[in-house]
Amino acid sequence: MPVQIQQKIAALGGGVGASKLLLGLYEVIDPEALTIIVNTGDDLVLHGLKVSPDLDIVTYTLAGIVDPLKGWGVRGETFHALKRLAAFGRPDWFNLGDRDLATHIHRSALLEEGKTLSETAESIRTALGVKARILPMSDSPVPTIIESNEGAMHFQKYLVKRRAQPVVTGIRFAGADAARPAPGVLEAVREASRILICPSNPLISIGPILAIPGVREQLRARKTAVFAVCPIVGGKSLKGPSDKMLAQLGYEATALGVARLYANFTGTFIIDPADKAQARAISELGMKVEILPTVMKTRAEKRKLASALLAL
Amino acid sequence: MPVQIQQKIAALGGGVGASKLLLGLYEVIDPEALTIIVNTGDDLVLHGLKVSPDLDIVTYTLAGIVDPLKGWGVRGETFHALKRLAAFGRPDWFNLGDRDLATHIHRSALLEEGKTLSETAESIRTALGVKARILPMSDSPVPTIIESNEGAMHFQKYLVKRRAQPVVTGIRFAGADAARPAPGVLEAVREASRILICPSNPLISIGPILAIPGVREQLRARKTAVFAVCPIVGGKSLKGPSDKMLAQLGYEATALGVARLYANFTGTFIIDPADKAQARAISELGMKVEILPTVMKTRAEKRKLASALLAL
Repeated sequence: MPVQIQQKIAALGGGVGASKLLLGLYEVIDPEALTIIVNTGDDLVLHGLKVSPDLDIVTYTLAGIVDPLKGWGVRGETFHALKRLAAFGRPDWFNLGDRDLATHIHRSALLEEGKTLSETAESIRTALGVKARILPMSDSPVPTIIESNEGAMHFQKYLVKRRAQPVVTGIRFAGADAARPAPGVLEAVREASRILICPSNPLISIGPILAIPGVREQLRARKTAVFAVCPIVGGKSLKGPSDKMLAQLGYEATALGVARLYANFTGTFIIDPADKAQARAISELGMKVEILPTVMKTRAEKRKLASALLAL
Repeated sequence: MPVQIQQKIAALGGGVGASKLLLGLYEVIDPEALTIIVNTGDDLVLHGLKVSPDLDIVTYTLAGIVDPLKGWGVRGETFHALKRLAAFGRPDWFNLGDRDLATHIHRSALLEEGKTLSETAESIRTALGVKARILPMSDSPVPTIIESNEGAMHFQKYLVKRRAQPVVTGIRFAGADAARPAPGVLEAVREASRILICPSNPLISIGPILAIPGVREQLRARKTAVFAVCPIVGGKSLKGPSDKMLAQLGYEATALGVARLYANFTGTFIIDPADKAQARAISELGMKVEILPTVMKTRAEKRKLASALLAL
């Protein structure tokens, strides 16, 4: 039975990792009390279309149409258009399904008509019946640029086209300094009874959101209400290249390493039982430490972690 | 056995009606000797994507991928993206299949990159393996506007959304006066040994091409080499609303009515045996009249008419 929580919850996150916890939250609270602030550093323009991977992953997941095996894209998807695009000599390293394409076409058409990215996200989530608010971190493009031994490249090119093979030497959030948080972002953090940092890549999912002027400061002002779920368990990423990227950039690829990145704005840091040995070192950074199972494979585990986080 | 004709052929046409004859021609001559000048008055922007229906019908037909029953779109097409676009509240009265969408996405992306419509047509036809040259009538948008008892509307809205139900009171080719023929159009007419006017709607398929400054004059200069195939047989359109539109605009919906529209630039007017009674009246307009079966249902009939036209 869903626990009806009337208090407002704000959650910051990226794509697949965040969506697991977000789905759990969505099912255990009044979804209308949930505001999700999503990384858009991964956004890119492909074939002239604006693609917002993390916004779409979150939206598709909460709409119940996400491909359950991949964690992104639409269930039962076909790729007829992409095959044709490839035949026209267009790049096909980024998978765009036929149903998924409609999202990008719709978003691009709205942007062309003068709508903001926030307005497109709102149009898409309401059309798909998602009751939680889904906000991009900013209405301005703030592309995440990976600097590497192969040169500088867009994050998606690093992750998808080059399969996270280049050695990362730096990360830039291009244009972040001049960007503003999307409407509602700062308010959501200010007004929430709890703010959750989802188990997403700290560098390229949470990092871009923190880079938008005002966000980190607003989180810091709400520090005791900020609960961060560690995405590294036993020295490994739950999903994606977080561990490798942390190590390549000189951070510890451990819960403690992530904790150091979050310590100045997080009140409570949640680690998996596998990392309980690091609890003391983390608490010395000035955060409460809570130990909860953070590996969510089943729907029940997602709901359980969400409920446990709200009960802390 | 294909008759190898080394002389250059130019053909002017619209979509489905023209494509029947064009396919016949394509199969009986050296396709590289064929230049097709296509109506782009039907072009429209849908969901931010540039759609060129007649260019695509011709290209898909010659590429062998057209839907054989409809005469437009791609064979075996799916419509997953369109269903989603409709769910996002976007108009879905214009059928856009998943494979077909790739064409519009590719064309739009090239235009966005600064390419001309001619260059996009060239990219698409070569990628699809079409050996004939396919030229838009102009690189500038020249939308066909139907004036009717329901007001002014884009031709596609009149034809597809309103199913040719409004009563037509006028036709405008918006921007035609300032448009230029696409590169190669005038040269193709000037250099061809024969110029064929395909059996297309004279008002809204051939009419827009003639409205581009210089085209009608160039045809007139080659009058004896111009062969026009009448699209009206026995007072009815072979395809589409030509007969109705002619009547509503005060023209005779007969072979003679079409002949009057073409007389000042056509040397030979080809009518079906069904209309042989009009041959004398047509010849009095100053054109030779030839009688050939113009109703092409089978591939053999398409090839036969094409061969017969070249043998005149």
